[in-house]
Amino acid sequence: MRVMIGGIDGYIGWALALHLVSKGHEVSGIDNFYTRKRVKEVGSWSATPISTMAKRVEAVKKLTGRKINFIKGNLTDYDTVKKSIRRFKPDTFIHLGEQRSAPYSMIDVKHAVETQVTNLTSSLNLVYAAKEASPKMHIVKMGTMGEYGTPNVDIPEGFFDIEYNGRKDRLPFPRTAGSWYHWSKIYDTGDMMFANKIWRLSITDVMQGVVYGTRTLEINDERLHTRFDIDEVWGTALNRFCAQAVIGMPLTVYGKGGQTRGFISLTDSVQCLRLAIENPPKEGEYRVFNQFDEPYSVLSLAEHVKSVANNFGLDTQISHTENPRIEAEEHYYNPIHENLKKLGYRRTKMLDEELNDIIRDLTRYKQRIKAKKSKLLPKTNWRKASN
Amino acid sequence: MRVMIGGIDGYIGWALALHLVSKGHEVSGIDNFYTRKRVKEVGSWSATPISTMAKRVEAVKKLTGRKINFIKGNLTDYDTVKKSIRRFKPDTFIHLGEQRSAPYSMIDVKHAVETQVTNLTSSLNLVYAAKEASPKMHIVKMGTMGEYGTPNVDIPEGFFDIEYNGRKDRLPFPRTAGSWYHWSKIYDTGDMMFANKIWRLSITDVMQGVVYGTRTLEINDERLHTRFDIDEVWGTALNRFCAQAVIGMPLTVYGKGGQTRGFISLTDSVQCLRLAIENPPKEGEYRVFNQFDEPYSVLSLAEHVKSVANNFGLDTQISHTENPRIEAEEHYYNPIHENLKKLGYRRTKMLDEELNDIIRDLTRYKQRIKAKKSKLLPKTNWRKASN
Repeated sequence: MRVMIGGIDGYIGWALALHLVSKGHEVSGIDNFYTRKRVKEVGSWSATPISTMAKRVEAVKKLTGRKINFIKGNLTDYDTVKKSIRRFKPDTFIHLGEQRSAPYSMIDVKHAVETQVTNLTSSLNLVYAAKEASPKMHIVKMGTMGEYGTPNVDIPEGFFDIEYNGRKDRLPFPRTAGSWYHWSKIYDTGDMMFANKIWRLSITDVMQGVVYGTRTLEINDERLHTRFDIDEVWGTALNRFCAQAVIGMPLTVYGKGGQTRGFISLTDSVQCLRLAIENPPKEGEYRVFNQFDEPYSVLSLAEHVKSVANNFGLDTQISHTENPRIEAEEHYYNPIHENLKKLGYRRTKMLDEELNDIIRDLTRYKQRIKAKKSKLLPKTNWRKASN
Repeated sequence: MRVMIGGIDGYIGWALALHLVSKGHEVSGIDNFYTRKRVKEVGSWSATPISTMAKRVEAVKKLTGRKINFIKGNLTDYDTVKKSIRRFKPDTFIHLGEQRSAPYSMIDVKHAVETQVTNLTSSLNLVYAAKEASPKMHIVKMGTMGEYGTPNVDIPEGFFDIEYNGRKDRLPFPRTAGSWYHWSKIYDTGDMMFANKIWRLSITDVMQGVVYGTRTLEINDERLHTRFDIDEVWGTALNRFCAQAVIGMPLTVYGKGGQTRGFISLTDSVQCLRLAIENPPKEGEYRVFNQFDEPYSVLSLAEHVKSVANNFGLDTQISHTENPRIEAEEHYYNPIHENLKKLGYRRTKMLDEELNDIIRDLTRYKQRIKAKKSKLLPKTNWRKASN
């Protein structure tokens, strides 16, 4: 199939490109190197050294004989989106090209506005361009499990049947998120649902859990590395813990660590996305996948990392720092996640196995992590967010 | 009390300013004349001739002896918002300064993006400025009953108790709207709920029905007129019907006309808003008011207008045009609206009485309406929205 990846230069975007190429799909991608620039802005870098896009594409060509078509462009520019779709005629456009850091959105008003404006604009551009240039194209929109928050009831896949004052309806499950970034993803969901309603666009809305891992089956050469962020702004909890373990820093659990989220490995994330792409929705369908394997509390993750790190001879401590976020530290959490399994999804990597690979990989880049040590501690504060 | 009105030059903003001044409140306001410019952009104008803001303020001074402090400024500029709040130190900031037309947001991708970006940016600026400059200030955010859509169950005021898979929680009622504009208001709601959660800002979120009417008790001089939009982009159904009746044009009901919405007169809208302002929420509270008097179907409104117009000797026809919107034309509709009544709200004007006043007022401006006759017919189409 022909697949276009918005945000092909990113953590998941690049890993997905390699995975799709390996499965024989024709891949094109667009990126404006937003994440590279913004990670630099906060004084950090990817723990894994990553090639330029030109070198990445060249390496793929050399190692697999396959061509990835890359356009440098900004998805917030409507003409760019429309022209790219007209040029490559993808069967599926997967939109990974958004500002994707919760702490980044919480820095100050400028970053809050930038996050919501960038994300909403790119999504609106995408649905209009689809309607105009390719109304049957399948859109895969990346959302996050964080859109649901942590309600005291089970979390369905997008919609639920309710009874209220004696009457019934099937409605979107109410969303309440924990950062301007997470809210921006809720807003994308709204715009996608509405575009589906008025223009019958075919859309898969992926509510993804937190992704961890340095590699996939296809990342088997240093030139093919995807980025791996470790700083407090761009690195997610589990990836950051692994980096901390490797340089002998205590794992900084925010607050009690009872915060529970759904997690999925990078390998299984790209597997899920491929399944969504290869099994598109019916024409005019809007469907939601809760994409994660297992919920873990932050503290239990730290304990897993500590235990695996010990096998590497690393003496790892767990420290509890004041929680810079505003979130429940103990709560019920039971999201349903059946839709991807129905498409044949099976988890391939267990947590400790993946942690083992991450720590082994990161050990090679210990000096790069050490150089950014000060960036691993929490700084962006939800309460104090200034302007 | 000291009240600052964002969007003081608008339909409700100006009527509210006059009402608050008459009740002894100290009023300041900010506007960048967005609506004046955008109505001009679609080739229309206010049926009532309206003065410049300078002349409005001068007339208020002359007629009431009271001063309204006006700043020309754009709420999408953060410094403007913060400085205005620092300068006037309002007890309440009421945010009416957004793009407020559903059809305008549906014109094309540029207008869709402009609507969502403008509205979200101004709301984010407001909550950050409040937190920074005046964290105890009461924010009144204008939402719309349209945020709820038309579910097959009762619509509560913001939140509802649910039971799902045997567990219970109190959650925001799921929102599903019918235009990019209405979705932007849902997104404002999200940002307001989150600002309340992280910074304990005191917020009243007003889900307002469709407002109708040319006047309030305080609009008793031509210099004090508020705007009154009649075109298919900026005029709401009922106001447009009255304008059509006055020039002998058939009332254009979209589709079957079974679409049912909550309505409230301008007089009662400003009464409600004053009550919300005079009875602020508790510190750190976020509360929701469903602000309308009675639900009417579009067809029944047309019949009311026809009947009142007949008393004026106007021979009025009702025509059904193809519905340019995508919406259910027959549906259940039962929103709860008790919170404002608890603050003492009582409806003061019945529908036919208000229609009588509107038609009498508009008859004076018949030539202004006739001049824009072609603008009264539906043109902006939800399905065809191009780019």
